[in-house]
Amino acid sequence: MTPPATAFAAGSTEPSRAAGQLRIYSMRFCPFASRSLLVLLAKEIPHEVVNINLASKPEWYLGKSPSGKVPLLENDGVLLPESMVISEYLDETCSGRKLLPQDPYKKALDKVFLESFVFSPIFKVYFNKEQYAEGFDAFWSNAAVVEDELKKRGMKFLGGNDKPGFTDLMIWPFFQIAIGLTTLYADLKIPREKYPLIASWIDSMSSTPEVMKLVNQDHLAEYMRLKIAGNANYDLGL
Amino acid sequence: MTPPATAFAAGSTEPSRAAGQLRIYSMRFCPFASRSLLVLLAKEIPHEVVNINLASKPEWYLGKSPSGKVPLLENDGVLLPESMVISEYLDETCSGRKLLPQDPYKKALDKVFLESFVFSPIFKVYFNKEQYAEGFDAFWSNAAVVEDELKKRGMKFLGGNDKPGFTDLMIWPFFQIAIGLTTLYADLKIPREKYPLIASWIDSMSSTPEVMKLVNQDHLAEYMRLKIAGNANYDLGL
Repeated sequence: MTPPATAFAAGSTEPSRAAGQLRIYSMRFCPFASRSLLVLLAKEIPHEVVNINLASKPEWYLGKSPSGKVPLLENDGVLLPESMVISEYLDETCSGRKLLPQDPYKKALDKVFLESFVFSPIFKVYFNKEQYAEGFDAFWSNAAVVEDELKKRGMKFLGGNDKPGFTDLMIWPFFQIAIGLTTLYADLKIPREKYPLIASWIDSMSSTPEVMKLVNQDHLAEYMRLKIAGNANYDLGL
Repeated sequence: MTPPATAFAAGSTEPSRAAGQLRIYSMRFCPFASRSLLVLLAKEIPHEVVNINLASKPEWYLGKSPSGKVPLLENDGVLLPESMVISEYLDETCSGRKLLPQDPYKKALDKVFLESFVFSPIFKVYFNKEQYAEGFDAFWSNAAVVEDELKKRGMKFLGGNDKPGFTDLMIWPFFQIAIGLTTLYADLKIPREKYPLIASWIDSMSSTPEVMKLVNQDHLAEYMRLKIAGNANYDLGL
């Protein structure tokens, strides 16, 4: 049976999983879960999504993931946390187009770039709503490494001219949160003049099939508004 | 010509490098540089080490590494920072025994484990010497994940019964600093009773060829003493 799209909460029963069916535990507005979902979508890997209510975690989920975090990948004999590790594992083991470069040096440079991109300030808004502008500004200050990298690589995406690569998909969900903030706060604007290459990249990313399938940007903004108000709704838009 | 073992400082000339000669830029007491050196030693990869004076960085080095950090790997067409990225790149591209598991799931679990190990408190001693006991205690509190992992894996090393694997080598340099602290401060002791498996692991690691070739523990402790006093000596023991 296909699990419902609404989020599982405490007191729920674990949905049964058919052998060989790859499952991802997610929360629809979590940027870390989005990373792994983007990889599944970009590689067109058949999978089922089980959404978790992070404010009231199912007991059976805590048995799989003691921290209760998402994403978590489950497959026959596989139970794997950590968005970046899951994403690389999926790219390595599943068919579909390769997202990471196959050349070891180029792959290593992608990892160095991912280490250099600090996205954490964007979360200030969830934990201290008074600091929304400060977190937004600090995020964009750190985003200079993305502008530089786009310039250095000279391509539409970090991963090539045709389609997003691994690095594009790993950083995109944090830009979606930044975009969400601009719809919540009229005083915030994407610094398109300061970062013209990121501005074009956002436009290009927004029209890729994987991003268009991922999450409705209006739902994300509304989720953020409610979450900031202390009233997260994990089933929003369903 | 083989570069001298003493550290290069501002005003120095870049030592010439023969084509095909793998070079690692290092600082002899830096735990991050130690990670990559341990990989080179464990895999018996021919290499030359160029030591950098981190208090007076050579201009030519800042041209290669704008942050001036170590380690940095240099080879024909390759210039790669970040200890963990360098280490994985060396394991992937160089001959010698494989340090990471070749099974993608086991490799992913190793990376999840490495993400879970927080070593940063040990550095408090360098940046705020008043907090040496606090940093030491916090380091050991975080080390519980290592004790748990050794118990779960049930082997002499995290990477097997015979020899250290990738995870062992990545975390070892931070334990060396913790050991160094116990020789500097009489009130600090390795919590051998609380962490019996880590205690055995330290003994096993200490007698591996790669660790024995890496750094003299007495020199490390003396380096730490001078560094804490604000008087780092990068050529100590040479």
